[in-house]
Amino acid sequence: MEIYEKRVKKVQEKMRQDGVDYLLLGPSSNMFYFSGLRTWADERLQLLIIPASGLPAAVLPAMYGEKARGVIAGRFPLFVWEDRQDPLEQVRELISARDGLRVAVDDNLWSSHLIGLMDILTGSSYGPASRVVDFLRKYKDEEEIALMARAGEVADRVMAGVRNEIRPGLSEKELAVFIENSFKRLADDVSFRPIVASGPNGASPHHTSGDRKFRYGDFIVVDCGGLLDGYCSDITRTFCLGKASDEMKDVYRAVNAANEEAFLAVARGCSGEEADAAARQVITGAGYGPYFTHRTGHGIGLDVHEAPYIVAGSRDKLEPGMTFSIEPGIYLQGKFGVRIEDIVAMTPLGPVRLNSFSRDLHEL
Amino acid sequence: MEIYEKRVKKVQEKMRQDGVDYLLLGPSSNMFYFSGLRTWADERLQLLIIPASGLPAAVLPAMYGEKARGVIAGRFPLFVWEDRQDPLEQVRELISARDGLRVAVDDNLWSSHLIGLMDILTGSSYGPASRVVDFLRKYKDEEEIALMARAGEVADRVMAGVRNEIRPGLSEKELAVFIENSFKRLADDVSFRPIVASGPNGASPHHTSGDRKFRYGDFIVVDCGGLLDGYCSDITRTFCLGKASDEMKDVYRAVNAANEEAFLAVARGCSGEEADAAARQVITGAGYGPYFTHRTGHGIGLDVHEAPYIVAGSRDKLEPGMTFSIEPGIYLQGKFGVRIEDIVAMTPLGPVRLNSFSRDLHEL
Repeated sequence: MEIYEKRVKKVQEKMRQDGVDYLLLGPSSNMFYFSGLRTWADERLQLLIIPASGLPAAVLPAMYGEKARGVIAGRFPLFVWEDRQDPLEQVRELISARDGLRVAVDDNLWSSHLIGLMDILTGSSYGPASRVVDFLRKYKDEEEIALMARAGEVADRVMAGVRNEIRPGLSEKELAVFIENSFKRLADDVSFRPIVASGPNGASPHHTSGDRKFRYGDFIVVDCGGLLDGYCSDITRTFCLGKASDEMKDVYRAVNAANEEAFLAVARGCSGEEADAAARQVITGAGYGPYFTHRTGHGIGLDVHEAPYIVAGSRDKLEPGMTFSIEPGIYLQGKFGVRIEDIVAMTPLGPVRLNSFSRDLHEL
Repeated sequence: MEIYEKRVKKVQEKMRQDGVDYLLLGPSSNMFYFSGLRTWADERLQLLIIPASGLPAAVLPAMYGEKARGVIAGRFPLFVWEDRQDPLEQVRELISARDGLRVAVDDNLWSSHLIGLMDILTGSSYGPASRVVDFLRKYKDEEEIALMARAGEVADRVMAGVRNEIRPGLSEKELAVFIENSFKRLADDVSFRPIVASGPNGASPHHTSGDRKFRYGDFIVVDCGGLLDGYCSDITRTFCLGKASDEMKDVYRAVNAANEEAFLAVARGCSGEEADAAARQVITGAGYGPYFTHRTGHGIGLDVHEAPYIVAGSRDKLEPGMTFSIEPGIYLQGKFGVRIEDIVAMTPLGPVRLNSFSRDLHEL
């Protein structure tokens, strides 16, 4: 498990540079990245404590004790607490509290846990863990890129299944269940609830798949992803059931061209915000600027959303080792939506798409 | 949507009593409880701001704008932000920051969001939202109890399906997929990932369903629940594939008797910790005390874990309107585990089990 120790050493170096005394990680992909531990968040405190130097320590509820002992395998100490105990007392003994302590806290740690920690670490200041962790996590090594590529292949296969499955009368929810089962069969799980948004529902980018049945003339936005060996895939295609109208074709063409333009910008070398601008310019040029209501993309890896973000204000260059989505969209309220998304990996030779399912208009 | 306004008024009364100035809710069942809004948590800030008096306000990313406008229907103001904007600037205008502000924060709001809020609300103090919200949410009204009962019936039906499905050679993961699909068909979704833990895996209370295939002689712990109209079910049964050994029967009997004894304690009227002690006493008396490693139960409603907790230190009485699990277990490392769980609703006439699937030993 040398990889975890290497990662801990690297983040500790960064912590010392930035003057961060402790990195407190909850149940999250950060905890997995630095320890191999994978658990689920709830009201019970779970903490991986990484000091600026020295060994980490884990504080976990008894129910994870057995599993965690196997994963940690003696690399660092584990403190297990039972439901009748207060885990903060263990934390108090592990963190030498003093005034002016600077603490980085896992971004998605529950606030109730942070509030508990603030009560015992008085006089400390807090920042999000992403500030010291992202610089590491956003550069994937070769093994990670290979895992991302495999995850992408599975997503392509699922999308091919989706293409065959779509028919009039099938409901959004039924297709979503088909997608979930496909990812569970071909990978480990979904990486997020599949979004199946048909007809006017497609105008809501994060639509919750419902009972609406597909009809001829629908655009159907399918946004889904799986989890394979810890790594996420994420792909969106928009299918047309039957023939697309001229307006539908026009919108589809604009979104597809925006996707391509962002990819070309990345190939020339650019920042996240420049890639976003490249996609946005195409859509604005086609007259649909106000209807592209979200960022162009997000980093992806152990989390389905992580650094770097392809959005205005994101000034860092997109560099080799980074993996991120390009997913422009146009949303016409009351009519339909179109989004086309691939995951792209930056390599020393330029960007590579990790999805190969055709982005052409599919009229089914 | 009068119900939401009533709930807001009640919590505002409590806030004024407790000296809490603002209640800040993220995407959660609290947000749903007070507004009807149901969204998913991620790195984008979503906030329902409830001041100690006056109208609430919501700050949501643009992707939820359309949906949220429909749900809120003009009852209170909604501020929508786009990816290129900083939502904290809107929050700053909605909360009149002053020194000594007391803020209650949703328990499962991401820490990164709380840290962002702390940066703009300097000099404020923070506590978990549960402290001002639980007193309301733990008392379900008649309609909520009826929804919980329907959710429980669905769980019983799924468990009946599980009983028929279990056979040698089926894997834990396959049974978990069967359970997920059953809940999606009969209800809206699962309320948590099903736990299917067979043979020695049963000794881990929160086992992740894996590739192990069932064999004759296995105890199989099945812990699952669904989501129906927002409300959760949660049930655990332990099945024996083939004939149970004397030790297995002995352990099963102890767990079943502990479940019954906790129920009787609740019927006599008791606190959460007394119900926990009642179950624990039976298991300790049978010689398995050290192997009952978790609390006896948890409240359940919009969240699968919520107040009241059936655990040492939980001194409040279990009163009419409360719904909670009773789920003692015994876990023998390297051998097997047994857990038996029903959801119980306290009514003015005493406790009622919301699950009716038999708790007798099932030898399949």
